[in-house]
Amino acid sequence: MTYKAPLRDIRFVLEHITPISQLAQLEAFGHADPEMVDGLLSEAARFCEEAVAPTNADADKQGSRLIDGAVKTPDSFPKLYEQYVAAGWGALAHPAELGGGNFPHVVANAFKEMLTSANMAFSLGPLLTTGAVEMLEAHASDEQKQVYVTKMVSGEWTGTMNLTEPHAGSDVGALTSKAVKQDDGTYKITGNKIFITYGDHDMTDQIIHLVLARLPDAPPGTKGISCFIVPKFLVNDDGSLGERNDAHVVGVEHKLGIHASPTCTMAFGENSDGAVGFLIGEENQGMRYMFTMMNDARLGVGIQGLSVAERAYQQAVAYAIERRQGRAPGGAKGESSPIIEHADIRRMLMTMKAYIESLRAMCFANGFAIDLAKNHPDEAVRVEQAKIADLLVPLSKGWGTDLGVELTSLNIQIHGGMGYVEETGAAQHWRDSRIAPIYEGTNGIQALDLVGRKLPYDGGAFVKGWLAGLESDAAGYAGGEGDLKAIGERLSAGLTTLQTATDHIFANAGSPAEVFAGATPYARMFAQVVGGWFLAREAKVAAELLAKGEGEKDYLEAKIATARFYADQLLPLADGMLASVTSPSSELFALTEAQFAL
Amino acid sequence: MTYKAPLRDIRFVLEHITPISQLAQLEAFGHADPEMVDGLLSEAARFCEEAVAPTNADADKQGSRLIDGAVKTPDSFPKLYEQYVAAGWGALAHPAELGGGNFPHVVANAFKEMLTSANMAFSLGPLLTTGAVEMLEAHASDEQKQVYVTKMVSGEWTGTMNLTEPHAGSDVGALTSKAVKQDDGTYKITGNKIFITYGDHDMTDQIIHLVLARLPDAPPGTKGISCFIVPKFLVNDDGSLGERNDAHVVGVEHKLGIHASPTCTMAFGENSDGAVGFLIGEENQGMRYMFTMMNDARLGVGIQGLSVAERAYQQAVAYAIERRQGRAPGGAKGESSPIIEHADIRRMLMTMKAYIESLRAMCFANGFAIDLAKNHPDEAVRVEQAKIADLLVPLSKGWGTDLGVELTSLNIQIHGGMGYVEETGAAQHWRDSRIAPIYEGTNGIQALDLVGRKLPYDGGAFVKGWLAGLESDAAGYAGGEGDLKAIGERLSAGLTTLQTATDHIFANAGSPAEVFAGATPYARMFAQVVGGWFLAREAKVAAELLAKGEGEKDYLEAKIATARFYADQLLPLADGMLASVTSPSSELFALTEAQFAL
Repeated sequence: MTYKAPLRDIRFVLEHITPISQLAQLEAFGHADPEMVDGLLSEAARFCEEAVAPTNADADKQGSRLIDGAVKTPDSFPKLYEQYVAAGWGALAHPAELGGGNFPHVVANAFKEMLTSANMAFSLGPLLTTGAVEMLEAHASDEQKQVYVTKMVSGEWTGTMNLTEPHAGSDVGALTSKAVKQDDGTYKITGNKIFITYGDHDMTDQIIHLVLARLPDAPPGTKGISCFIVPKFLVNDDGSLGERNDAHVVGVEHKLGIHASPTCTMAFGENSDGAVGFLIGEENQGMRYMFTMMNDARLGVGIQGLSVAERAYQQAVAYAIERRQGRAPGGAKGESSPIIEHADIRRMLMTMKAYIESLRAMCFANGFAIDLAKNHPDEAVRVEQAKIADLLVPLSKGWGTDLGVELTSLNIQIHGGMGYVEETGAAQHWRDSRIAPIYEGTNGIQALDLVGRKLPYDGGAFVKGWLAGLESDAAGYAGGEGDLKAIGERLSAGLTTLQTATDHIFANAGSPAEVFAGATPYARMFAQVVGGWFLAREAKVAAELLAKGEGEKDYLEAKIATARFYADQLLPLADGMLASVTSPSSELFALTEAQFAL
Repeated sequence: MTYKAPLRDIRFVLEHITPISQLAQLEAFGHADPEMVDGLLSEAARFCEEAVAPTNADADKQGSRLIDGAVKTPDSFPKLYEQYVAAGWGALAHPAELGGGNFPHVVANAFKEMLTSANMAFSLGPLLTTGAVEMLEAHASDEQKQVYVTKMVSGEWTGTMNLTEPHAGSDVGALTSKAVKQDDGTYKITGNKIFITYGDHDMTDQIIHLVLARLPDAPPGTKGISCFIVPKFLVNDDGSLGERNDAHVVGVEHKLGIHASPTCTMAFGENSDGAVGFLIGEENQGMRYMFTMMNDARLGVGIQGLSVAERAYQQAVAYAIERRQGRAPGGAKGESSPIIEHADIRRMLMTMKAYIESLRAMCFANGFAIDLAKNHPDEAVRVEQAKIADLLVPLSKGWGTDLGVELTSLNIQIHGGMGYVEETGAAQHWRDSRIAPIYEGTNGIQALDLVGRKLPYDGGAFVKGWLAGLESDAAGYAGGEGDLKAIGERLSAGLTTLQTATDHIFANAGSPAEVFAGATPYARMFAQVVGGWFLAREAKVAAELLAKGEGEKDYLEAKIATARFYADQLLPLADGMLASVTSPSSELFALTEAQFAL
């Protein structure tokens, strides 16, 4: 159950789909030239393979536990986290002025993929801290940045996001935690939060909680939410840790997976008149601030699907080569064949490989668009790329995390009975993967975001134009020859189906019920087709390199064969989804509650 | 997390799809008239709801453990099993001459569904015992039946199946356990077996192991396997338990799910020159004997998918009605809506409901065909029904267990974050469900069975004729009006696609590699379409009853709406699978082993 960072494929994407060399032209990323990034990725790969990956199984077994009012993480975590901080990995994409490395998001995405494959439960602490930093970086005062953020960038302190309450999950606006302003300008925070990732742990001395709460006179819903910094320990003027704040973990969930990641129930102000909180920005602007980090957080969760699928894939391939069972057609008489010679196992491995490579390209392209949107000198490019990033986010998150579950399940199936035994490790990947379609906005919410928020950009002109670009690419491939021609034809057919579905959504724009009814199958179909476009682009690059005699022949030929498999066998699944996109909402609402329960 | 037996839908199937009244006309089932069966099912429902279902969560938590060389099941199990035996549930479908109730298989199937929903891990002990009884009933000597089988029928003793060895899982023929004949006619059995369900437990004093082993001079492969009775305790002439046999549990697996079902590693003859075994039937005929029980065992596993999905569905509906979050289009202003009012939740509930009802009809129809095949007075009917049963088995098992995983996953999704917390119970259903696509022949093997063994019946004429019957039904519905017309048209379209795929399989009959390559998507497509046929049949019955003013209006209207949803939104998924059925095997085998690992 080892892990090897898929550096070759990561580099292929960073070179040809999301060109790092192009980012290095931008002022912000002048230091991040391809050679430098390459060295960095090698270092990161070594860290993830050697230090992180070996902790994964034991950490799952041991889990994080609540002991005497504090969380104890697995034995391996405190030291591992120390190494993580010492190497500076947490600072990778943060601005230089806060002590960060100022690397492009897409490079941070590549690191995130590897770290999460190595140990998803461990990676969540850094992920949440990164999100908190981004939010503070954009909205905190200079003083707050100096006191809190630099130490979070370095990783010396970690951060949390306290949004969810028992009756406010997907509906954040329903939260009821309270904040009362004090004469000294601070606030007293009271309330309970659930599902707080790394709400407490023993890896650092200090934890900075970002807490959403409501002022006494705040308007209802999302417009009355303010965001506060609530440190575990108050910070003295000299930067040293002072008094313990009344922010405590009171429970740790016993979950299906990511056992090593402490999912905490937090109580604020339970032993006093309130925990001390410091307002971020202005009152009642908390939800808006949270949106700052949403794209990145959602993309980060999409990458979790990719990561856990990649690790499961590596395990599946190793097992399929080693395990012998039965005789495949054409196998040596009297000998059992490695199961990789059986068609059904091949189908599962090809399916994993094709989806993973497509998903990697999609997620990295999403990060690349974020980089351009933030850093390109031309405003028109920034605006255009921001829209592309926004469009890709629900796909990366929704499709990525659904695939995470589907592909880790294939790994179990390839292992047969051994896959069902926990010792093998295949089950852990599947268990771990199952949270990702739920948190950071359920995949149902991602689908609504796609149809309700993203499609309407520019009155629909944006998405239509973007899809027209894909169609033009497809037509170009279809005009070629061999595999690329076949891939282009399939992609064109898929895009035609997607166009029909998209037209249906626009035709019903006035009726939210109809649009929402088809949202989930539409989002899956959209991603299924766009996934084919990414692999087609990769196949085209591979064909060009092969024609020039450049690159590694075996790798590039596999790239084309994988794209061909996807185009012929996975892309057409989108056709079967059209009917459910266009069926009327009345079919979903035909039954009364009582008729469901009959 | 309660369970209510879905008696209304079970009765609907038993009355209209697999008419119990028709079985009661047969000599064998004269005592099983509809009224009697109805009373029996009510009793069974009460037992499953009140005695079994409440043990499910605790049993999962406690699990079965190996303590001092013996298995300790969860605290609730010994007494629960005693109740099970006392009520005579184990004897339901076994012949009267062995002390059984001689009820039709389809009635036993209905009981199996309820028992498994109530506690899948518990149900496995009885399931294995039933399989062992069927095998012995067909092939054991009269003396063996008298000594062992009657007590297994009553449930006083349980049975196990010892097939799998570390290097012989799907490939049973590769097993190496040895059997050496002794002068007294018994055999000395040595070897190790893995994954032995209820290989040891504390619910009964005696366990009868059926063990596959190889004689010293046996031919290789499946043709050299013999089957032996190896009792945990030798049985004295007076029927009392004698000496402890050298058949011991040496390990219990730590599994992803079904924690309460002890999955044992067994050692035979480890402390002696062999465990004492008694040959069943003739030497080297063991595999053939095993096939006797295969249809029933596989159907039983398919029902596990149905059962666990049904329980998850009930939990999902209850939660979706109770949980409020966000405001659905049309919902009261300023109030959050029950999540069942959100389209995405509706889609998941409708998907669960439609698949479950279709699967129930399919599994019961499978049992019904087995009943007719065994008991109909007309040989032509018996032969025809045996083929139908054989054809449905890989569908019930493969589709049923795949759906079990898919639908329990939807229950988790409906629960959101709460679904990921073990306490809720949603996770357990998903974990439990995941074994079913693996054991009793992986679903890949089911697909091969469909294309490689079942399609070729009568040179293909059988399946073609059977599908022609479905087409004629579909045309009939399409000639009607309203929902039924729409359902018939969709079903016709699905059958046309299935016909194209079937033609492709037959056209490649000479090339196993091509047939095997498309097997898995073909099997899924086949079941997806046939599932639509079952719901269409139910819708037709419902429409007729409504026209006559008979039956419960709400239930029957829901039946039609459910069939319509399936036809419009789930059946068309089959279209998307055609391309992968017909793609050449070369696409699966384009990569070398090294190219997978790159």
